[in-house]
Amino acid sequence: MITRAECARRDAVDPLRSFRDEFRLPEGVVYLDGNSLGALPRRTPGRVREMVEREWGEGLIRSWNTAGWYDLPRGLGDRLGPLVGAAEGQIVVCDSTSINLFKVLAAALRLRPGRRTVICDADSFPTDLYIAQGLDGVTPRAIDPAELADHLDSEVAAVLLSHVDYRTGRLYDMAAITELAHRHGALMIWDLCHTAGALPLALDDCEVDFAVGCTYKYLNGGPGSPAFLYAASRHHDAAQPLTGWFGHADPFAFDPTYTPATGIGRFLVGTPPLLSYAGLQASLDIWEKVDLHELRRKSQSLTGLFIELTPGLDLAGPQDPALRGSQVSFRHPNGYPIVQALIDRGVIGDFRTPDIMRFGFAPLYLSHTDVWDAAAALTDVLTTEAWRAPRYTERSTVT
Amino acid sequence: MITRAECARRDAVDPLRSFRDEFRLPEGVVYLDGNSLGALPRRTPGRVREMVEREWGEGLIRSWNTAGWYDLPRGLGDRLGPLVGAAEGQIVVCDSTSINLFKVLAAALRLRPGRRTVICDADSFPTDLYIAQGLDGVTPRAIDPAELADHLDSEVAAVLLSHVDYRTGRLYDMAAITELAHRHGALMIWDLCHTAGALPLALDDCEVDFAVGCTYKYLNGGPGSPAFLYAASRHHDAAQPLTGWFGHADPFAFDPTYTPATGIGRFLVGTPPLLSYAGLQASLDIWEKVDLHELRRKSQSLTGLFIELTPGLDLAGPQDPALRGSQVSFRHPNGYPIVQALIDRGVIGDFRTPDIMRFGFAPLYLSHTDVWDAAAALTDVLTTEAWRAPRYTERSTVT
Repeated sequence: MITRAECARRDAVDPLRSFRDEFRLPEGVVYLDGNSLGALPRRTPGRVREMVEREWGEGLIRSWNTAGWYDLPRGLGDRLGPLVGAAEGQIVVCDSTSINLFKVLAAALRLRPGRRTVICDADSFPTDLYIAQGLDGVTPRAIDPAELADHLDSEVAAVLLSHVDYRTGRLYDMAAITELAHRHGALMIWDLCHTAGALPLALDDCEVDFAVGCTYKYLNGGPGSPAFLYAASRHHDAAQPLTGWFGHADPFAFDPTYTPATGIGRFLVGTPPLLSYAGLQASLDIWEKVDLHELRRKSQSLTGLFIELTPGLDLAGPQDPALRGSQVSFRHPNGYPIVQALIDRGVIGDFRTPDIMRFGFAPLYLSHTDVWDAAAALTDVLTTEAWRAPRYTERSTVT
Repeated sequence: MITRAECARRDAVDPLRSFRDEFRLPEGVVYLDGNSLGALPRRTPGRVREMVEREWGEGLIRSWNTAGWYDLPRGLGDRLGPLVGAAEGQIVVCDSTSINLFKVLAAALRLRPGRRTVICDADSFPTDLYIAQGLDGVTPRAIDPAELADHLDSEVAAVLLSHVDYRTGRLYDMAAITELAHRHGALMIWDLCHTAGALPLALDDCEVDFAVGCTYKYLNGGPGSPAFLYAASRHHDAAQPLTGWFGHADPFAFDPTYTPATGIGRFLVGTPPLLSYAGLQASLDIWEKVDLHELRRKSQSLTGLFIELTPGLDLAGPQDPALRGSQVSFRHPNGYPIVQALIDRGVIGDFRTPDIMRFGFAPLYLSHTDVWDAAAALTDVLTTEAWRAPRYTERSTVT
């Protein structure tokens, strides 16, 4: 078995080790839930304070111009571009992942008139399924992505998949699946919630049509920080139904007729919640310095180590590191109380129904020794059966 | 003419005068744009810092439960209730005004099957018109609200009006117009962006069907703070198409089928941008202490005084204070440079095309002497023609 000292040796040569100092993490916590809510960057409180006290408090309405507020949805989109492999002018930061999905699904349906089926992963994070169910005149078809080829026919307008399965951590092949969908005339939409900031992405190179994702997980933008929407340039004449004033070609002309902005701007809707943008502004300063290939190597090293240090558990995701996101999940009938007992010991993971214990590994602020400590705590909770205490079995509303 | 000393006497007996201390306003500024972006409450930076540093930084994912994040959209909705005359359980705080309009318009159309016309005010803030234009299968009809009775027929599913015209400040009669719409079988939707926090409202008593509004103007929630959506209890079985996971009956069951929440929760969509909620949490602490009838009296006193002190200008809105929101607008062919010259003198108003100089009067932080000073500055800019300087005539993107 790998020793803690060996983990410390790996940490000493970790090319990303200095990034840990960019984050504030509570004492005594090993945080394995950065795939649900990323940790607080040290620079964020200062940036938020600056927006609140100087830009809002002093600048007041003038800050729409002088502090560049008006440009944030497009500007932050361009700053996200390198993280997802998108050239400039194809991403906006706005709204929630759910609402952005609605926009791109509606746009995709208009680009494929006559086709009314949207294929989704039956095991997707449910909001993907729900949004497809809410769209007028759509037939959503929930499938196992492994059987995608069997479902592609001339009715399929779009395929919507999560790049990483939120429960198991399984990673899908973006290039191959996008190519397969295109071969059948369908558009390809990727949900990047669990891959943006976890591994290098190549939206442009894979000829992806649309993508959405959140910025509050691996990207560390803060709780509920605004989502992003990618639309390939070739689809910038597509219409979407949420035609609010921020998507107008000239919002401050106050023209009574809607004329969509040229370019990605037409996917904007209403006034952006700016305080939530400040967090993302700060965290993207960190991302500018990250080599995403180093990030992926470290992610695989951490997840592989955790699996190695917890033998005998029922791995829910793939053994092959190439098929794994930055997350490790185990199935266990007592997963819920086990995760609660771990949280009590300072190892924060989460539980997803029906039986998934889920551990996310954010390479920027986790070390191999953290992984060792987490694995030791998990082993201890299991061998002592500490999870049987009644305080761990009671369920709370939100897990 | 009323003297500055007389204004000071009025301020001395103003029952709301102590609220000014609740706000930080820059030195040397008279802020008459609180109808566009409200001022910063003194308690807000501390509340935002608490959410960032303690709830996010220390609590991390646990704060969804322990800091009550999950309950914020409904909880803040209930706290807004008394400001708009709504009993509990009928308001959620979420998304933008534009997106909330989309939801309530779609819900209204489903409640009035067979009717496809939505009547809007041709002079509405354009996002109202744009959203109606974006809805599938809808015939928007833009009218002069004075002629509403002539347009109500059996095709009209809903009437959507701004309670106060964003340009002129004209206030509409909520009770009478709602009753008129109902008499013709149409649902009534009010846009409260320019009245929430400006005067008492009575949504329940007027039997309004739906309402939307923003929280960043008179309510001082911060730049782009989340909007609100009111749906009368009798419409809580209505469906809306933005069926995201936060609107599900049990989001953390991760059920693949969408089952809407019972009650107002079904109007929620995605993960809320929490930092932007923190500002509203802080500002609502102030609103709990405000008597809205005192607020209305002071608003009318301030707007009436400004009109009285600026004789000879072309008032764009009503002379009758009962028909006026908390805003005074003048038409002037050189409105744009005049407003710029005023801003340069520390009197911040704004300009709306084609020729409207717009001045908002937030009664919580403005005094009669502020109004006197603003009127004196405006008179000075006009009599000296200071606005003719080239630096005032150049247009910026956002006004």
